[in-house]
Amino acid sequence: MITMVDLNCDMGEGFGQWVLSEAPDEALMALISSANIATGFHAGDPNSMDRVARLAKEFGVGIGAHPGYRDLQGFGRRTIAARPDELINDVLYQVGALREFGRRYGLGLQHVKLHGALYMEAAANAALSEALVDALARTCPDALIFCMAGSQTERAARAAGHGIVREFYADRDYDDSGSIVFARKVSRPDPQAVADKCLRACREGTVETVSGNAIEIPFESICFHSDTPGALEIGTAIRATLTENGITIAPAANVVQ
Amino acid sequence: MITMVDLNCDMGEGFGQWVLSEAPDEALMALISSANIATGFHAGDPNSMDRVARLAKEFGVGIGAHPGYRDLQGFGRRTIAARPDELINDVLYQVGALREFGRRYGLGLQHVKLHGALYMEAAANAALSEALVDALARTCPDALIFCMAGSQTERAARAAGHGIVREFYADRDYDDSGSIVFARKVSRPDPQAVADKCLRACREGTVETVSGNAIEIPFESICFHSDTPGALEIGTAIRATLTENGITIAPAANVVQ
Amino acid sequence: MITMVDLNCDMGEGFGQWVLSEAPDEALMALISSANIATGFHAGDPNSMDRVARLAKEFGVGIGAHPGYRDLQGFGRRTIAARPDELINDVLYQVGALREFGRRYGLGLQHVKLHGALYMEAAANAALSEALVDALARTCPDALIFCMAGSQTERAARAAGHGIVREFYADRDYDDSGSIVFARKVSRPDPQAVADKCLRACREGTVETVSGNAIEIPFESICFHSDTPGALEIGTAIRATLTENGITIAPAANVVQ
Amino acid sequence: MITMVDLNCDMGEGFGQWVLSEAPDEALMALISSANIATGFHAGDPNSMDRVARLAKEFGVGIGAHPGYRDLQGFGRRTIAARPDELINDVLYQVGALREFGRRYGLGLQHVKLHGALYMEAAANAALSEALVDALARTCPDALIFCMAGSQTERAARAAGHGIVREFYADRDYDDSGSIVFARKVSRPDPQAVADKCLRACREGTVETVSGNAIEIPFESICFHSDTPGALEIGTAIRATLTENGITIAPAANVVQ
Repeated sequence: MITMVDLNCDMGEGFGQWVLSEAPDEALMALISSANIATGFHAGDPNSMDRVARLAKEFGVGIGAHPGYRDLQGFGRRTIAARPDELINDVLYQVGALREFGRRYGLGLQHVKLHGALYMEAAANAALSEALVDALARTCPDALIFCMAGSQTERAARAAGHGIVREFYADRDYDDSGSIVFARKVSRPDPQAVADKCLRACREGTVETVSGNAIEIPFESICFHSDTPGALEIGTAIRATLTENGITIAPAANVVQ
Repeated sequence: MITMVDLNCDMGEGFGQWVLSEAPDEALMALISSANIATGFHAGDPNSMDRVARLAKEFGVGIGAHPGYRDLQGFGRRTIAARPDELINDVLYQVGALREFGRRYGLGLQHVKLHGALYMEAAANAALSEALVDALARTCPDALIFCMAGSQTERAARAAGHGIVREFYADRDYDDSGSIVFARKVSRPDPQAVADKCLRACREGTVETVSGNAIEIPFESICFHSDTPGALEIGTAIRATLTENGITIAPAANVVQ
Repeated sequence: MITMVDLNCDMGEGFGQWVLSEAPDEALMALISSANIATGFHAGDPNSMDRVARLAKEFGVGIGAHPGYRDLQGFGRRTIAARPDELINDVLYQVGALREFGRRYGLGLQHVKLHGALYMEAAANAALSEALVDALARTCPDALIFCMAGSQTERAARAAGHGIVREFYADRDYDDSGSIVFARKVSRPDPQAVADKCLRACREGTVETVSGNAIEIPFESICFHSDTPGALEIGTAIRATLTENGITIAPAANVVQ
Repeated sequence: MITMVDLNCDMGEGFGQWVLSEAPDEALMALISSANIATGFHAGDPNSMDRVARLAKEFGVGIGAHPGYRDLQGFGRRTIAARPDELINDVLYQVGALREFGRRYGLGLQHVKLHGALYMEAAANAALSEALVDALARTCPDALIFCMAGSQTERAARAAGHGIVREFYADRDYDDSGSIVFARKVSRPDPQAVADKCLRACREGTVETVSGNAIEIPFESICFHSDTPGALEIGTAIRATLTENGITIAPAANVVQ
């Protein structure tokens, strides 16, 4: 039975003139407690990172680096067959870039969350997850690593004693293995259905899979995506439903401390 | 009469499979006291940044971020008509990225040196230099700003009380205004002639301009470029000539402290 | 007194997951007679080029390459200080890329229109315009060059006997010199006011400038921008107003033949 | 027993200030009969494409587009998990870009050869090879497709009646299946050993695999890579050895006509 949970969302996923989310950043920021800020390789640019970091300060939202594959064209949703060491260098580069904007506004780095196909690759790839944990242990030992419960990322972080936050994916489907069903495009879900799914997960610790089974999902943070159609309504419904049911929404660092 | 001077060089100016300098990084690192590390927008990538930062640790070389315009194609040697605020965001992004690799090897950020056309633009553009100094004052107040003597960058940094290091350009020509003659391509200079020019500058504080006049050049660091043809011979000649004449080569932070 | 005019619009100005225009491509395509297709350097990617070329075939719209500076971050609206020869190579690269998609759908290249800051630079830069005309004369002598009346581009094309199409900018302001007032961002204009401005220009050959004067503007094509807020309403109003007033909208190649 | 063979090499694999090959383009061009010109996604830029196309005209070398994955960082040697339709759009974009430079110098497109990991992916991926052949059949039906004997690319092209050229890889190792052993980095081979391997392949139609077996390799073109260390010596040795043994080197289009 969860009484305090983090609510995280990807933020700043535009590039140059382009924006991805139909929801204004300010409106989303008022709903969430942790922001995964796109760091330029799959989306995001220095201007959006600066803007989102400033908003995070204003709204009291914890910030995390959200590094992805170097793939603007594919939005980081296509796996690139690179070596772990070069992917980790890509991650460190992006983490450092975000930290500088955090520092500009007096914000420390709360967390690191890999994006898209890189997140999924690390979840399945022990060597990559171990290299990630090893690198972050040296440069930002206090930054929480966001991951899927049961993933190689969780396993590697636990083995190294690195702080983790496990996520519940509000707007993604689960299969019976507890993995999310990865999609390059998603459709518009019903906001209240998503919120109810979150409430049940907080209360019962379970989610219904695509095949109709209920599986256990441990988590400390709920994730929804700013590019899911209807993101603002989804976030609003989740926050309202959880709050009305006595569940506090707070930054991940507060939840896991 | 200078008795201690920094010797700086741009490092890691490759990208992916490509390298720019004909000289091996290790050989250059053994000669210099400060490395300006390319940070990915005009050259450099996370792998080269990691490699050069590790070498800097090994050789006791001070590290600086060397951010340029977002222009891989033009190697950052073409001015882009962008607003100061977006250029400063580009700079912070790159500075932060390099810091993460420094942190990986236990190295603090010694300095920031803008690259190529961005360096020249800031030298002439008061608003850009002021925005730069203002931003760095918040995120890395102890990082020295490398600049040309008499530039807007020097002026802005002094006005804000930010530490600076003025450079003498060993392998570039000067005009009578004390500005270097900017070129997108340079030819192969005589190493000993370059070294003698540096020695005279240290002893007499002057340099001969393209029109044959001697002008005064105050500086704390000597710069040569790793992509100047014969860079290794140039660096070797400078180090030998200065050292033989009793001038100590030390990282910029030691020189200006 | 114009009785037949082309109506052109920039199309495919997204990149990867991102779209720029709020208006669906299909809806805009039904309104216009010529499409300037973004070719990847400032916007557009192979997928959008393929999609827009297919739509152009379906709607009987003339296609043009719309090459810009290599500047995704700045959407090609920032001048890059490059040499004419390298800019022309950039243009040829993009022109060729678009042609391949035209060929896929049985469409020849109707025109070339430079984008944003590159269009403005060529308008003022005789050497660049001459290099452009010279290059296109060799690779696509039949492709019309879209330009501003009175620009260096018009002058260079006329001198070489290359076909041109002069544009009237429906959603941009004019100064007294007949040049448009270039802006990186534009506000939402009144669609009918834009349409009335076009009708007057067709009938009287004049436009009111930002200082309130009426100046003469010769043109064969009317341009509006798909990223101007309200683009669909603007295009709809222009088409309806012109058509209701007996002015035929036809591809540029038909207008100037 | 082969009496006429094509000799192909990747050309223009630099980017901006960077070059990859230690051998000058002119020297390589004097040795080969077909050039695979890097088209910008993994290497190459409009300036190098222009330069190499002009040289090809001067030396009577057949030109081919050499499109790769959009991966400058990884030099196109890392597989990207993209859909066939988007990869084919990437290929068409690059093919068209190169054609424009060919047209500038009066050269038609002789062939298309995929690069690196994309070449290997197509070799194994029937759907991708079929989509490639289908697209090229519409836009450039006369362009020969370079491929490995026995690959899905050969199969798809034959099924569609599209002209092919099978390659023998002078500077790569073979496994017993007849596939080359793909490597992101290669070492410096002995030039004469490479030349002798080519001569044997021409005379006997066989090559020795990494496990010591001799397998049959049918081919119409011999490939060596400009970034293999010692490329100039390798190409010189191949040309001399074949010519001295009565084998004519001629562009692929002449060999297969």
